[in-house]
Amino acid sequence: MTIRVAIIGAGPSGLAQLRAFQSAHAQGAEMPEVVCFEKQADWGGMWNYTWRTGLDEHGEPVHGSMYRYLWSNGPKECLEFADYSFDEHFGRPISSYPPREVLWDYIQGRVKKAGVRDYIRFNTAVKAVRFDQASRTFTVSAYDYSIGQGIEQVFDFVVVASGHFSTPHVPQFDGFERFSGRILHAHDFREAVEFKGKDVLIVGSSYSAEDIGSQCFKYGARSITSAYRTQPMGYKWPKGWEERPQLLRVEGELAFFADGSSKRVDAIILCTGYQHHFPFLPDELTLKTSNRLWPAGLYQGVVWEHNPQLIYLGMQDLWYSFNLFDAQAWFARDYMLGRIKLPQPAAMAADSAQWRAEELALQSTASMYEFQGRYIKHLIEQTDYPSFDIDAVNRIFLKWKSDKKQDIMGYRDKSYRSVITGTAAVPHHTRWLNALDDSLQEYLRETSGKGDLKTLRQH
Amino acid sequence: MTIRVAIIGAGPSGLAQLRAFQSAHAQGAEMPEVVCFEKQADWGGMWNYTWRTGLDEHGEPVHGSMYRYLWSNGPKECLEFADYSFDEHFGRPISSYPPREVLWDYIQGRVKKAGVRDYIRFNTAVKAVRFDQASRTFTVSAYDYSIGQGIEQVFDFVVVASGHFSTPHVPQFDGFERFSGRILHAHDFREAVEFKGKDVLIVGSSYSAEDIGSQCFKYGARSITSAYRTQPMGYKWPKGWEERPQLLRVEGELAFFADGSSKRVDAIILCTGYQHHFPFLPDELTLKTSNRLWPAGLYQGVVWEHNPQLIYLGMQDLWYSFNLFDAQAWFARDYMLGRIKLPQPAAMAADSAQWRAEELALQSTASMYEFQGRYIKHLIEQTDYPSFDIDAVNRIFLKWKSDKKQDIMGYRDKSYRSVITGTAAVPHHTRWLNALDDSLQEYLRETSGKGDLKTLRQH
Repeated sequence: MTIRVAIIGAGPSGLAQLRAFQSAHAQGAEMPEVVCFEKQADWGGMWNYTWRTGLDEHGEPVHGSMYRYLWSNGPKECLEFADYSFDEHFGRPISSYPPREVLWDYIQGRVKKAGVRDYIRFNTAVKAVRFDQASRTFTVSAYDYSIGQGIEQVFDFVVVASGHFSTPHVPQFDGFERFSGRILHAHDFREAVEFKGKDVLIVGSSYSAEDIGSQCFKYGARSITSAYRTQPMGYKWPKGWEERPQLLRVEGELAFFADGSSKRVDAIILCTGYQHHFPFLPDELTLKTSNRLWPAGLYQGVVWEHNPQLIYLGMQDLWYSFNLFDAQAWFARDYMLGRIKLPQPAAMAADSAQWRAEELALQSTASMYEFQGRYIKHLIEQTDYPSFDIDAVNRIFLKWKSDKKQDIMGYRDKSYRSVITGTAAVPHHTRWLNALDDSLQEYLRETSGKGDLKTLRQH
Repeated sequence: MTIRVAIIGAGPSGLAQLRAFQSAHAQGAEMPEVVCFEKQADWGGMWNYTWRTGLDEHGEPVHGSMYRYLWSNGPKECLEFADYSFDEHFGRPISSYPPREVLWDYIQGRVKKAGVRDYIRFNTAVKAVRFDQASRTFTVSAYDYSIGQGIEQVFDFVVVASGHFSTPHVPQFDGFERFSGRILHAHDFREAVEFKGKDVLIVGSSYSAEDIGSQCFKYGARSITSAYRTQPMGYKWPKGWEERPQLLRVEGELAFFADGSSKRVDAIILCTGYQHHFPFLPDELTLKTSNRLWPAGLYQGVVWEHNPQLIYLGMQDLWYSFNLFDAQAWFARDYMLGRIKLPQPAAMAADSAQWRAEELALQSTASMYEFQGRYIKHLIEQTDYPSFDIDAVNRIFLKWKSDKKQDIMGYRDKSYRSVITGTAAVPHHTRWLNALDDSLQEYLRETSGKGDLKTLRQH
């Protein structure tokens, strides 16, 4: 009997699952009955930019947390698909840190080629997933806004590919209800120009803090103050950016910090992370985890041990991303197709416990992405996903970290070499700090013969 | 058998339902098993101000659309509880247009006195309501964030009191994805000071447009441009505020209007209304309506005709508000307690059709609130809710409209007389346009003997 698979979300991980099935099908395997439920009107998940914040046109929580002017904050060589290179998509070398629209275009390129769009049910929000013990099937309840109707459908497997950067973790600080400026979470940040000439307080010290602060700085904020809880980010910040210890409270326009200092600020951006949030799942099917390298309860980081017909993609703290989703999706595919057999529950638990123990022993930053690299390698060895040089990717991560340490406002001007094709990236025609237009068109603009080549060569 | 009642929402209408039951109980009736599910940590619904926007601390859509500095935009004499007067609560006359916190205090006063807080399950979001035909009961599924657990409970009646000013209607206009400033819906508007010195575009021409524009003006926006779709609001706007016909598109910082004109703006506030949105209800139980005086399918504006164990409160376009919720809640109570019998389905439909026909024939603005007044009177006649002079309230509405026409920035300085107690309101110690502090403390500050009395007398 043809298996029935629901995929929740048509972002990078959901699309990886579709591509994985299509790839097997192209080699003769039976295609399951797949329905990929996507809340948005288009695919790409987080990479499908929206100007909307809060609730969308249907009253559903907005999925996107992307902002205008977002450029990849890690080298594209670390996330390249092993089965669809940047060379294949763009037909020429591009820079190592492309802006959002360029990466969105790349993501779409692979799935357009694979022809999987028809498996996606757009404008359809999953409301509830129930498991029936007797029939061992899932019933997925969803609302299709394009027809204005609730629907229900039965599946053998459910693949949760809804991401974990959509539901903000939003702490409260004393005085927020009387603060006389805008308070927003990174999830609702869209446009740095709004903060031009403003004194901006960034709460947090991870990637969002670093990058949203940098965007505001780049687009003309008067000052950036970033408040850390445990330790400062410690980069060589440009003039106008300072780090302070934990925010304690605000009073009127004043922010007070743990060192007793205070600062007048116009706006507060909470870069305080995201929650793993699955409002459509009942308790017993819900992954409850912080953002970490080895969430508990997932065999091979993918299969829900308590009910192996449920699969989670991409729920790990991500160093690797697109290629990690691929490795997981190919593994999940082969498991669903019956090519990979699961061990007994006790053996699954023991296997997971071992990965967790290894995770807990990690000390250095390098050991973390190396751990994730080993995990990916382990998955790839079990499927036909094209192998690639993970040690080389780890070396790029190491170089990336040191480039950032050296020049936080300039690291995106560096170039790396693809481990898939060997192609060396070329510098972008404009330095990141001066590139104010982040559009695909501007990015792909030919610069040769237009007097811009000189700038290019200076890099 | 004691009936089991679920109330969804502890805002003004849900609290009216609790107070209605408690009032009957105080007079000897049996108290049903009532659970009032409230997503927020405190009661008051919309009137419980939150600085949060988008998603709340639990990842649930934020209920509140209230902003700082919101003052009642209609005379408090039009919404006074017939069983709990402003005099009883404040112990002295106050002005006719109090700020939010003052009204929140008043709402709370009645239910504190009634002692109904223990019926409310806070931090608990209703996820799904199912009706079982065999047992003729509802199962309410909810998530209690205070214990981090999903719960299910069975009820005979469900009262939907979740309001209809929480889910924004957010249209898209060409160019929004590239507009270089903030775009927000009124639902996410919190703080007018953020727009000080800015050129603000307000899209819409109803109450939110009028009032949010006024707030921004009051707190120092450089200019207000409001764009209407069908007709201008037509008030005598102060210098710096102009009305333009429909917004067509934006390009960079420029907004283009239907008359061919354009204007550079810093921010766009969409005052484009709200959706009736009940994501927790299955299709067959869902009220689908625009914001109008007589939504279809509700017998007496309250009982869901297709399944009369389901009740909706406050779903009408609201001229009257708190006292309308009361009239409905008392009616719903007596129906649930078996004191009021429903006619046959056909008779209910005929009754509703008659109200609807009457609604469709309404022409003037005055005829609309008079219609709603008749409706309230009709409900009150069927219960023991204290009767009050609805014709007198209608006359206040009429005066209010003419006061606004005369002076849109000054109408809140006018005073009216309570139809419940006969007490004349007193002018506030500071004219609305100069009253920048909207706190309860500031509002109730004694002014006599502090040199402010002179200001008071000048009114």
